[in-house]
This record gives sequence, C-alpha cells and structure tokens, in this order.
Amino acid sequence: MTRSGRRPGPTETRAHILAAARAQFAAHGYRGATIRAIATDAGVNPALVHHFFGSKEKVFAAALDLPLNPDLVVTTLLAGPRDEIPERLVRLFLTLWSAPESSKSLHALIRSISTSEAAAAMLRQFLERAMLAKVTEALGIPRLRATAIASHLVGLALVRYIIKVEPLASATDDEVVALLTPVLRLYLTKD
Amino acid sequence: MTRSGRRPGPTETRAHILAAARAQFAAHGYRGATIRAIATDAGVNPALVHHFFGSKEKVFAAALDLPLNPDLVVTTLLAGPRDEIPERLVRLFLTLWSAPESSKSLHALIRSISTSEAAAAMLRQFLERAMLAKVTEALGIPRLRATAIASHLVGLALVRYIIKVEPLASATDDEVVALLTPVLRLYLTKD
Repeated sequence: MTRSGRRPGPTETRAHILAAARAQFAAHGYRGATIRAIATDAGVNPALVHHFFGSKEKVFAAALDLPLNPDLVVTTLLAGPRDEIPERLVRLFLTLWSAPESSKSLHALIRSISTSEAAAAMLRQFLERAMLAKVTEALGIPRLRATAIASHLVGLALVRYIIKVEPLASATDDEVVALLTPVLRLYLTKD
Repeated sequence: MTRSGRRPGPTETRAHILAAARAQFAAHGYRGATIRAIATDAGVNPALVHHFFGSKEKVFAAALDLPLNPDLVVTTLLAGPRDEIPERLVRLFLTLWSAPESSKSLHALIRSISTSEAAAAMLRQFLERAMLAKVTEALGIPRLRATAIASHLVGLALVRYIIKVEPLASATDDEVVALLTPVLRLYLTKD
C-alpha cells in the first residue's frame, strides 16, 4: 500500500487501515469483515490493527467516523446511581449531537442509512452485536426495551437536529433531559 | 399547461396541480406556498384546487405523496376512550408504515429530509403548522410533549423499518403497542 519506498508513518498507516476497513465493511458487512482481512488489505500485520484500534467495533466506529464507543457508553451509564442512568444517557446523547465533530458524523450517518441499505445493514449489525449487547448486559434490561430506548433517542435526533421541529429544536438540553428522563426510566424499570 | 387543444380531464388537472404544488413548496416552503400561486402555476382557478384537495395541508400531503392527514389523525385519536389514545396512535402509525403504498412514501420522506434541507424545512413547517397544531389542540397537551411523542414514533420507524434492528424489527405490532403505550401515556398525562 505504500506509495513511495520509505516506510509509512503512523498517521499514514492508520489512514490505510481505515480505508481498508471501510472497503471491508462495505463489501462484507459488520459481521463479515475481519481484522485479518482489513490488515491484509492495508498491507499491515493484524497486531498493528489491534494496536491502533483495539477491537473490530472500534475499527468500525473509527471507519464510520462514528462517535459511538459501546464501552464509553456503558462506562458513562454506570458512573453513578442507577436511578440517574436515564439522565446520563440523554445528556451523553445530546452532547454527541451538539459537539461539532461528532454531530457532523452523526448527520452523515443518518444520511447514509436512509439512502443506502448496505450502510443500514452495517449500522444494524454494529448496534445489535456491539452497542445493544453491551448496554443490555450492563443494565440488565430486555433487548426489546433497549431498542425502544434507542429508537426514542434516534427519533429525538431526527426531530430536534435534522427536521428541527419547534419547540423541541429550541428547547434547552435541561428541558429535553426533564422531558425524556421519566419516559426512559419507565423503559429501564423491570416489570 | 394543457399540451393539446382539448380540455384536460380531471386526472390530468389533478396531476398539473400536484406538479405546480411540488414546485411551489420546493421554492417557497410550506409557509410561503399559497393555493393561489399553485393554481396560477397549474393554469387553473384556485377554487378548483380547493375542490380537488380541500386545503393547503392536503395539497401538501398529496404533493409529497404523504399518508399523513392531520384531520384523519385527530379523528382516529379521538374515536374512543381517552385512555386508549396511546394505543390508537401507535396502531395508526404502525399501519401507515406497514401498508405497502404509505410505507413507500414514508421511506421516501425519510430519505428526502435526511438529504435535503429544503425537504426538511417543508416537513418541519407542515408538522408545526398543521399536524402538531391540530393534535395538541385536540389532546390538550403542551407542544413540547407532542414533539417528544412524534420523535419517539419517528425513531421507531427508523429503527424498526429502516435500520431494522432486532428484536424490534421482528416484534409483532401487538408487542410494539404493548411496549410503547405506557410511555406515550406518560407523555399524554398532564403534570
């Protein structure tokens, strides 16, 4: 993959790995892509992919420029009283959609899943196998409820940040937290 | 607008009006477009636009091939005990997304709003001025809560029908109704 005779620097290598990862995820989906195949495509040792990214889910998040790290989500949710999980979840989500860089990636993600079945399939597999698997295990709630929570948050993003429907678009983060917290708490409460 | 010397039939006239409406909504947004301008563009009398569609919101829904008629939504919601409104709302929404024709339009709508700011603006104005205005008045709930309900439903569609995340994608309509009803009831309950 190296274009000149010199050895590529870490930034170049990282970029090569991400380009190979995008190609592999696009061709084989989240499930079908392997660290080994990505490494082969990038012309590096698989250990180097692990060194740069740590895991397939992290390569995926980086390849899609996705500010969604399942471990970070779980750590944030569990960092405090269980009763405050809904509030922490809404705040984390609002922060991701408000910060310029992550917001740009998330907008691009919504665009790609609504126009490309392949992108939707990749995100589906990532959510099912990485994000929801970890979050439901950490919170001890049924999968179906976790998808309901995810759907409310995704819809919040669409209505607040993309369609920009008032008064939700102009509501403060605190107002949105107050609005959604009781509802998410209901989903998190076991029957 | 007539291409031959003969007088156009009702199907042709309706199509001319819808083409003019799409152009007007695209150029001036939902708020800026008027029945008068649409009629002028279509080369017909404004009374004829009223005759075919009844109101600007209905021209809009027809122009976007949108199975969202605010009056129908309100009538459906109010057709029975108030306590069962959440269930009727979820069932109506699931029916629209399951029926082949309306589902096709809704998929196209999600695609267009996530790729076009103009389409997002049109839908925003339609939701704010027609749909949410009527629904919040009929149900007597604050606007912010109505947008929260709308966001949950939009996200449900995205996660269940577009990204197709399991187990939400394969859940039966009854399971989805049971899942969302208590949550929407919470939004509909006044503080």
